[in-house]
Amino acid sequence: MRIKIINPNTTWSMTEKIGACARAVAQAGTEIVAVSPAMGPVSIESHYDEALAVPGLLQEIAAGERDGIDGYVIACFGDPGLKAARELAHGPVVGIAEAAMHLASMIGSRFSVVTTLGRTIGQAWHLAEIYGMERFCANVRACELPVLELEEPGSRARERIVDECRRALEEDGTDCIVLGCAGMTDLCEHIEGVLGVPVIDGVAAGTKLVESLVALKLRTSKRGELAKPLPKPVIGALESFTLSR
Amino acid sequence: MRIKIINPNTTWSMTEKIGACARAVAQAGTEIVAVSPAMGPVSIESHYDEALAVPGLLQEIAAGERDGIDGYVIACFGDPGLKAARELAHGPVVGIAEAAMHLASMIGSRFSVVTTLGRTIGQAWHLAEIYGMERFCANVRACELPVLELEEPGSRARERIVDECRRALEEDGTDCIVLGCAGMTDLCEHIEGVLGVPVIDGVAAGTKLVESLVALKLRTSKRGELAKPLPKPVIGALESFTLSR
Amino acid sequence: MRIKIINPNTTWSMTEKIGACARAVAQAGTEIVAVSPAMGPVSIESHYDEALAVPGLLQEIAAGERDGIDGYVIACFGDPGLKAARELAHGPVVGIAEAAMHLASMIGSRFSVVTTLGRTIGQAWHLAEIYGMERFCANVRACELPVLELEEPGSRARERIVDECRRALEEDGTDCIVLGCAGMTDLCEHIEGVLGVPVIDGVAAGTKLVESLVALKLRTSKRGELAKPLPKPVIGALESFTLSR
Amino acid sequence: MRIKIINPNTTWSMTEKIGACARAVAQAGTEIVAVSPAMGPVSIESHYDEALAVPGLLQEIAAGERDGIDGYVIACFGDPGLKAARELAHGPVVGIAEAAMHLASMIGSRFSVVTTLGRTIGQAWHLAEIYGMERFCANVRACELPVLELEEPGSRARERIVDECRRALEEDGTDCIVLGCAGMTDLCEHIEGVLGVPVIDGVAAGTKLVESLVALKLRTSKRGELAKPLPKPVIGALESFTLSR
Amino acid sequence: MRIKIINPNTTWSMTEKIGACARAVAQAGTEIVAVSPAMGPVSIESHYDEALAVPGLLQEIAAGERDGIDGYVIACFGDPGLKAARELAHGPVVGIAEAAMHLASMIGSRFSVVTTLGRTIGQAWHLAEIYGMERFCANVRACELPVLELEEPGSRARERIVDECRRALEEDGTDCIVLGCAGMTDLCEHIEGVLGVPVIDGVAAGTKLVESLVALKLRTSKRGELAKPLPKPVIGALESFTLSR
Amino acid sequence: MRIKIINPNTTWSMTEKIGACARAVAQAGTEIVAVSPAMGPVSIESHYDEALAVPGLLQEIAAGERDGIDGYVIACFGDPGLKAARELAHGPVVGIAEAAMHLASMIGSRFSVVTTLGRTIGQAWHLAEIYGMERFCANVRACELPVLELEEPGSRARERIVDECRRALEEDGTDCIVLGCAGMTDLCEHIEGVLGVPVIDGVAAGTKLVESLVALKLRTSKRGELAKPLPKPVIGALESFTLSR
Repeated sequence: MRIKIINPNTTWSMTEKIGACARAVAQAGTEIVAVSPAMGPVSIESHYDEALAVPGLLQEIAAGERDGIDGYVIACFGDPGLKAARELAHGPVVGIAEAAMHLASMIGSRFSVVTTLGRTIGQAWHLAEIYGMERFCANVRACELPVLELEEPGSRARERIVDECRRALEEDGTDCIVLGCAGMTDLCEHIEGVLGVPVIDGVAAGTKLVESLVALKLRTSKRGELAKPLPKPVIGALESFTLSR
Repeated sequence: MRIKIINPNTTWSMTEKIGACARAVAQAGTEIVAVSPAMGPVSIESHYDEALAVPGLLQEIAAGERDGIDGYVIACFGDPGLKAARELAHGPVVGIAEAAMHLASMIGSRFSVVTTLGRTIGQAWHLAEIYGMERFCANVRACELPVLELEEPGSRARERIVDECRRALEEDGTDCIVLGCAGMTDLCEHIEGVLGVPVIDGVAAGTKLVESLVALKLRTSKRGELAKPLPKPVIGALESFTLSR
Repeated sequence: MRIKIINPNTTWSMTEKIGACARAVAQAGTEIVAVSPAMGPVSIESHYDEALAVPGLLQEIAAGERDGIDGYVIACFGDPGLKAARELAHGPVVGIAEAAMHLASMIGSRFSVVTTLGRTIGQAWHLAEIYGMERFCANVRACELPVLELEEPGSRARERIVDECRRALEEDGTDCIVLGCAGMTDLCEHIEGVLGVPVIDGVAAGTKLVESLVALKLRTSKRGELAKPLPKPVIGALESFTLSR
Repeated sequence: MRIKIINPNTTWSMTEKIGACARAVAQAGTEIVAVSPAMGPVSIESHYDEALAVPGLLQEIAAGERDGIDGYVIACFGDPGLKAARELAHGPVVGIAEAAMHLASMIGSRFSVVTTLGRTIGQAWHLAEIYGMERFCANVRACELPVLELEEPGSRARERIVDECRRALEEDGTDCIVLGCAGMTDLCEHIEGVLGVPVIDGVAAGTKLVESLVALKLRTSKRGELAKPLPKPVIGALESFTLSR
Repeated sequence: MRIKIINPNTTWSMTEKIGACARAVAQAGTEIVAVSPAMGPVSIESHYDEALAVPGLLQEIAAGERDGIDGYVIACFGDPGLKAARELAHGPVVGIAEAAMHLASMIGSRFSVVTTLGRTIGQAWHLAEIYGMERFCANVRACELPVLELEEPGSRARERIVDECRRALEEDGTDCIVLGCAGMTDLCEHIEGVLGVPVIDGVAAGTKLVESLVALKLRTSKRGELAKPLPKPVIGALESFTLSR
Repeated sequence: MRIKIINPNTTWSMTEKIGACARAVAQAGTEIVAVSPAMGPVSIESHYDEALAVPGLLQEIAAGERDGIDGYVIACFGDPGLKAARELAHGPVVGIAEAAMHLASMIGSRFSVVTTLGRTIGQAWHLAEIYGMERFCANVRACELPVLELEEPGSRARERIVDECRRALEEDGTDCIVLGCAGMTDLCEHIEGVLGVPVIDGVAAGTKLVESLVALKLRTSKRGELAKPLPKPVIGALESFTLSR
């Protein structure tokens, strides 16, 4: 099967890291296609960034449909454009926050999310709520790290993330950690080694969930809310998004 | 004061109707600027349509900020891009679903939403939930009318909407009606006359709420989640959305 | 239009302050009538006080109906007698806790309420819940100030309130403040100046919301729970409350 | 022990029926004092009626405190004035809706409430919510019977109530019935005989709960929200409610 | 009437203490039968312990049915096997966590649970949720005391429990305490004396609630979920649990 | 990897069907071990049956731990003993209701559960709640089929299940179906073919989820609630369940 991992920001170094992490957990026979969109912001740290990332993401879904992709992972912890992507795709689409939170609920009693900037805490709580995972989420904690600092070789990002995870265990009464940014995908094993509790990375989690859904032949339901969008004119700079009948 | 009403779809006949309804309720001294974006779909009936409407909407907010606009109404019942718009704006931004539901909760015990296509029911419930209005919302009902049919002179849209409102009163145990589409803004008085219960149109409701917030000098809080987005490169077809520092 | 602001306690110095704040935000053409009832406690700091304030409040609503009042504000943060008042009134009735919380939810992501005595915290949470605003309310904090101390010229009330508001921002992760007592209505601008976040006073908020509802011709629904009370004998000291058919 | 059952309306025929039902379930050694207040409406079918019943009810609590009453039952299904009564009383105070719903949750999986007028349905749901019993309440159904019709000898009230209970079992998926009016207290056994499921009357339930609390020496906590009200002047027709220090 | 108190663990010293506490609050004419099962763990501190305690508990219910028992109390704060027990019993069955939490909600505004080991905190919250009592539960606190240490004469258990209760009052904003273990049943009066707030022991609470239900002739509804289990073979070591038709 | 599928009832024909379905979706390299316990009821249709199935299930977990099993699926839609099993196991344990509901939430907007007997509806709702999936669950419907009738060759079970699924789509506004019994595991493809919406079988879903968790090296957190049970004596017929230190 072919799974497309879409990093909705346009920083390809992050996309490559994400692709590598997905390939590391994919089963034999799964081809991982990791991409960033051709348009959009270099990182996603606000509702504004998210809104601008979604059209490029949808282009990648549309391209994937033409290419026979079996399922998709949206690799940004805000899960931008998830429902719109599901409308476009015939196969399953899973967000990494969604994937990580669901799996966390199956191996522990409560988790803490450790994320980048404090201004994204609200969105993480919002996702926990709409996925039904709020009851498992003890806390969402920010390291006040800009996303792109995770890409800088000599940064102290890793230490700060480990410290915040440790505080989560001590103060939140949780028994597992969800990493709140696709850019942390390579830190999972390290943190688990240091802290001795399960640490869940959404990129890996999303890859396995989409693999599972494809193996089970479970596709997005086309009855109701997630049916293919009605064809209609789109004008201006986004004219190319007009769907043909 | 100057209030900008943004119809996020690109059908200007609807924009004009919306502008007229806003002007009819605005107080003396309020200037209503009603616009549609330069890019985006002609109507919004799916998550895909919504995602494509948001960039154009944000352009209009950014333009409004340059023009000294005091507050904004997002005139589509899905309230697309509301949080991103709030990040950009210094003044208040209100969605019409948000406005209508809040006011409905103050004049009755429970309301029913009557909207266009069944596939948008999920979004209306979602908004009711995130605004805290789910507890007042007895039902969301669809007439299975495409949005643009509301613009066609000889259509039977009005009759079907009145019929669905009547069923809402009979079957849902509600005591007021919320109209679930900006295109219904001119039907409010007619339906209220026929049914004898309050009927709330979000365009009018949003206009008065933004007027109220501006009069009270209440602006979007810039502490935390809704602070101005961080400046960063946006690439490709959306490059013009790059915010300067 | 004529809007009646009812301070349900019987301390007229507070009533005058409340009236002045309402007039300061009312639009040209709105007449503000500010009153206290002829019976009831001098301040409202318990469920007992609230229960005793309601009959006098309802007398003022009944008088307002005879006088052609268009809408009412109940100016005590416990919103006493709100539903009973709505049954009596043909126009809209809004409580100041209700008004402040609703508007707060439109300009920030979460608010803290800062109120007087700790024993009223439960009631503030109760109101947040029944209005659907619990999800926006991060905390309710008390300054342990008796209501009437707000009326004393040389008191340190203002400082203590500002201090508590500052703690709210630091500890609660909120981005706006709701003042939890009608007697704080004149402190709004000062606190906003000191802290730099929106501070919402319910008296002003309620005045604008009732103005908006009246302008929109939205009246209390008389279908169902809020219909006019059935006429029936009331005996004893409250005999004058008997409604005529 | 002495338990005072307060019927908050001023119809003494109902008070006597309520007293008889309480006595029928009280244990040996419990003295039941059943009263109606000296002021207030003859029946309670609206928020207005409730508000006017509460001062008289509180007078009876205050009198009970002077008389050494050990605990109180508020015998109207709207549980009017419950928190204010708890502030005044040193012993326990239980409402009949509260009592009936709690016991129902212990003997079945879900209950339906069968009440009098449709306009009171909202209040029954409100109580279910604030007591935490909403999750056990499948439905609240009205017979559209005025309360006082239950007192008329030849009325068809009993038949209509049984019919509505039967529909509840058939349509709501419930396994027990809560009677939604103190005036139905004498119908419990009859309905249980006809329908073969537990039928819970709040007057009996409340009596046993207060007996239990008194036997356990559990009194209303005087730490925090339910502490004795602060002494302060009450003016006008309610001046006699002024509490002495 | 005859009430059977089942201590689901197999430590008879605790069973005797529980029986004594039940007898101390039972009314004249109530016979208390206190037992432990013939199989199961010596204390219940995990989901595993709970699962192994339930068959023995159900044996005691089955025996009670043969002996004409009128109602049952399950005297372990995890309320193990409650629904299964209700299926077997014709009379009422109440758990001690259930009983304590319900009564606490009637005499205060919010309670804290003080329990034994931290690993049982999740179960206490779970019970609060399924009984609808989560809204009254401010916190669940553990003393990190193994259950059986409560049985050891010279242990410092009592001091640690009192300390934790004191912290609950200071830090949780609660006004009553629920003791979270049947083994604490004899500490109630002492703690109440020290702290001056109501302290609720589930064994006493459950005894009075079952007495009340029996007096009211309220039995477990046999319509639906709690009907008698269908007869069917049970094999292996539990073969004796096969129900006859 | 080795995954053990435990059918908690003792009907081996069902166990074999379950094993076959799991093997059909397992990836190359996954060994499926399908078993029934040595003790317990032949089918699980009540809380009583569930309680009696759990000890045998836990024996199988304990045996699996000795045998080096990597993860477990509990193949009964009531997910009996899930938390106790997680305490015993070092690897992941997933219930089939849990698995099916989580996956359903990722491919549709709302699902209906179609199950066997009406008396189990409450348990399905309970699980939806504790997994956070209540918000996706539109309805739980029973066919009033005893579990073992699914094993009888000539029964009309399949037709009745398809009919109930069809009604679910028509009446519940759902877009996918969750099959509410492990015994329906072989009907999935047939119903999906007839109805054209995704149909989710928990056995297959659980198998893929456990495979995913094992591949991700995500094991049950041993910090807190799900830590290994404390060793202690278990007496009587269950003595063999005593854990060694």
